[in-house]
Amino acid sequence: MRLITLTTDFGLADTYVGVMKGVILGIAPAARLVDLTHAIAPQDLLEASARLEAAIPYFPPGTIHLVVVDPGVGTERAALVVETDTGLFVAPDNGVLTLPLLQFPARRAIRLGEAARRYFRQPVSATFHGRDVFAPIAAHLAAGVAPESLGESVPPELLFTLSVPEPQAGRDAEGRPTLHLHVLYADRFGNLITDLTAARWAAWEQEVGDLDAGVTVQAGETRWQGLARTFAEVPIGRPLAYWGSAGRLEVAIRNGDAAQTLGLSPGDPILLAASKRGQ
Amino acid sequence: MRLITLTTDFGLADTYVGVMKGVILGIAPAARLVDLTHAIAPQDLLEASARLEAAIPYFPPGTIHLVVVDPGVGTERAALVVETDTGLFVAPDNGVLTLPLLQFPARRAIRLGEAARRYFRQPVSATFHGRDVFAPIAAHLAAGVAPESLGESVPPELLFTLSVPEPQAGRDAEGRPTLHLHVLYADRFGNLITDLTAARWAAWEQEVGDLDAGVTVQAGETRWQGLARTFAEVPIGRPLAYWGSAGRLEVAIRNGDAAQTLGLSPGDPILLAASKRGQ
Amino acid sequence: MRLITLTTDFGLADTYVGVMKGVILGIAPAARLVDLTHAIAPQDLLEASARLEAAIPYFPPGTIHLVVVDPGVGTERAALVVETDTGLFVAPDNGVLTLPLLQFPARRAIRLGEAARRYFRQPVSATFHGRDVFAPIAAHLAAGVAPESLGESVPPELLFTLSVPEPQAGRDAEGRPTLHLHVLYADRFGNLITDLTAARWAAWEQEVGDLDAGVTVQAGETRWQGLARTFAEVPIGRPLAYWGSAGRLEVAIRNGDAAQTLGLSPGDPILLAASKRGQ
Repeated sequence: MRLITLTTDFGLADTYVGVMKGVILGIAPAARLVDLTHAIAPQDLLEASARLEAAIPYFPPGTIHLVVVDPGVGTERAALVVETDTGLFVAPDNGVLTLPLLQFPARRAIRLGEAARRYFRQPVSATFHGRDVFAPIAAHLAAGVAPESLGESVPPELLFTLSVPEPQAGRDAEGRPTLHLHVLYADRFGNLITDLTAARWAAWEQEVGDLDAGVTVQAGETRWQGLARTFAEVPIGRPLAYWGSAGRLEVAIRNGDAAQTLGLSPGDPILLAASKRGQ
Repeated sequence: MRLITLTTDFGLADTYVGVMKGVILGIAPAARLVDLTHAIAPQDLLEASARLEAAIPYFPPGTIHLVVVDPGVGTERAALVVETDTGLFVAPDNGVLTLPLLQFPARRAIRLGEAARRYFRQPVSATFHGRDVFAPIAAHLAAGVAPESLGESVPPELLFTLSVPEPQAGRDAEGRPTLHLHVLYADRFGNLITDLTAARWAAWEQEVGDLDAGVTVQAGETRWQGLARTFAEVPIGRPLAYWGSAGRLEVAIRNGDAAQTLGLSPGDPILLAASKRGQ
Repeated sequence: MRLITLTTDFGLADTYVGVMKGVILGIAPAARLVDLTHAIAPQDLLEASARLEAAIPYFPPGTIHLVVVDPGVGTERAALVVETDTGLFVAPDNGVLTLPLLQFPARRAIRLGEAARRYFRQPVSATFHGRDVFAPIAAHLAAGVAPESLGESVPPELLFTLSVPEPQAGRDAEGRPTLHLHVLYADRFGNLITDLTAARWAAWEQEVGDLDAGVTVQAGETRWQGLARTFAEVPIGRPLAYWGSAGRLEVAIRNGDAAQTLGLSPGDPILLAASKRGQ
C-alpha cells in the first residue's frame, strides 16, 4: 500500500486529475492517493517547486511524489525518477524539483529511456504525458518496479535547475545592514511566502552580529518594526512578518489579503533592515 | 480501517489539506479520508458548525470528524476530542461543534493536555495546528489511542459555545402569527439555508394551531405564498422555500442565485407569516 | 475493493460530495473513490456526457461510474444502472450517458424499481437523490448486489438520449469541401473541445479524397492554416487546432484562453475547409 501524492497545474474543474487516478489505480489498485495541490499557476515551475519543498517533509518515507507541471510536454524534455531519503519523485526534467532536491538531495536520478516505454499508456499523446507517461510510471513504481530498470542514471548535477531567487545582503543609505528578500508565491489568503529560510536568517544574524534590536520590514510602500510570532499579536488590518508553517518568512495582513493590499506579486522585493541597537 | 472526515477553511489551492493528509497517513496508513469541505468562509465558525450538523448523520458510527476552523490558533484556546453516539470530533474549543453537539450530545469531552503532547508533530508551529496538533491526534485516535488518555474530561456544559440564531415567533401588524428566521449560510448555488428546523416548525405549527392555509414568505423585498416540495413546482426565475436536504428550510430561486438576487447574507432575516384561514 | 468514480455538478464548496462519500463508505467500506469532476456547469447534461466519454476509457474494467447531474430530481424521471464492457453506470435516465454509451454500448440497462427501494436512504428527499438514491445504489453494487435484482431490464434504445451536435459536411462559396464543427465545452484553460472525433475526420478525409494540402480553420473571426501536433508549434498568443487528449479536435490559444479570446461558447460553430491541392 504505497502512498502517491499528485501535484499539477490542471485544476479540479476538468477530469485530467481524475483520469490520472484511474490510470494509477488500474495499475496499482492498492496505492493510496493524496492531492497536494492542482492549483499551481499554469506552468509556474517555481511556485510548484516551493510548494513541494514545504509539503514533502510531512509525508512518510517512501512516498512517491508525482509532479506534472510540464510546459514542455510534447517536446524532447526528459522525464525523471529521482530517489531521495524522503521518497521518490516522478516529474519532467524541467527544474520543478530544484527546491525539493536542495532539501533532500538526489541519491540517484534516472532519465526514462527505452526500457520505460513498455509501461507508458499507448498511444502516448502529444499533450497529456501526465496520463500517458508520468501516472503509469508512478503506479508501476508503487507496484514494485525498480527505478533503475526504467532508464540510465544521470549525475544529479546534470538535471535541469531553476534559477531560484535568494535573499541579498547589503546596507542601506544609513549604513544599516539590510537583507533584500523576494516573494516566491502567495497562498490563497494572500499571504506572501518569501525566499528567506531560517538557515539564511541565522547566517545573516551571524554576519550582522546583533539582531537583538530587531528589524524593520518594508513591503511595498508599507513599513513596520519587528517580526511577529502569531497573527493575534497585531491589530486587525495591520501587516506582519512571521515564520510561516512552510519554514520561510511570510508577510501577511491580519484578516486581510497582503498580496492585494501591499500590491506584491511573485518576484517582488521585501526589505529587512537591522534596527540600530537600542533604537 | 477508520474513517476520518476533514473540514477546514483552508481551500484547496494551497497544500495545507494535502499536508494534513500526509501527516495522518504517516501515523495511520489504513485510515480512509473524506473531504467534507475546505471552503468554509475564513474563520466562519457558524457556517462550519451548520455544515457539519447537516453532514455528519450520513457517516457511519465511529467516524472521526476532524475540524480545523481555528481563528485562535497560536493563542491559549484549548483543543478537544469529543465522543458522541455518531463518532469522535477533533476540533479547537471555539464553538465550532455547537450545532453538531446539539444533535449528538457529548458523551465525554477531553481537553488535550500534557499527555497529548507526545503525539503532536514537533516543533508545534504557531500558525498551523491543523498539521501539528489536530491531524496527528485524529490519526492516533484512528490508530487506536484512547481519547481518555489524551487529557482530562471537561463537563460538556463548559465547552465554548457559539451564539446560534434561532427563529423568533411573533405577530405582524395584522395580527397574523409570524416566525422570524435568519440565514445561516448560502451554498454555492446561492441557496439560502435558514435557522428553521423541522422540529421548530412543528412547534410553531402547534402554537399557531393551524397552518393549513399556508404561509407567506418574505425574503428581502420579495414575497410569495407557500412552501414548495421541489424546484419543478415553480417557474424558472421564481423564488421558493422548501425543506432542504440539510433538514432546514431553504430559500432558492429556480435556476438562479437567491443570495445574489434577493440580496441576502448570513444573519439576514426571512419572515414567515401564517395566512388567514381560507385566504 | 471496487472502484467508484463520482461526476456531479455540485462543486466542492458544499458538503454534498462529502456526504455522498459518507453514504457510500458506510455501505461499502472498502470501495475506492475517485472524483472525476464536480464542476460540470449546473445541469449541463451534454458537458457531463462529453467529459465522461473522454474519461472512462482510463479506468479499469468493472469500475462503477456514479453520475449525478440531475435537473429532474424530484420528478418522475427514472434512475438507471447500465452494464457495459467498461463497467457499470449509475445515473438518472436523462441522457447524461448518451456519449459514453455510443462508445461502450449497453449490454443491459436496468430501471430501478420497487426492488431497489430497500437500498435507498430513507426518507428519500425531494432534492438530493445523489445522497439518497444514487450513492447507496452504487455502494451496494460495489458490495456485490446484482444489477438485475434492482429492477426491470429496459431495451437500451428506450433510454432517454441527448441530441448531440455532429459535424456537418458541405462546400463553401469557392467549392471547397467544408466540415462544420461545434464546440461541446471549454476546459478550465479555455481550450475548446469540438464534436469532431478521429473517426469522423477519417470519414471526411475519405469523402474529400485528399486532405494532404491541409485545412483552413475558422473559429470566430480568426482563421489559420493547418492542424498542429503540439502547442510548441505555434507562437505564444496564436491559435491552434490539434487532436486533444480527449480524442477530439480542440482549438486553443498557446498560453491563452481560446474561449474568451475567440468569443466561443458551447454550441458555437468552428469551420474546417479543405485547402486546394498545392495552395
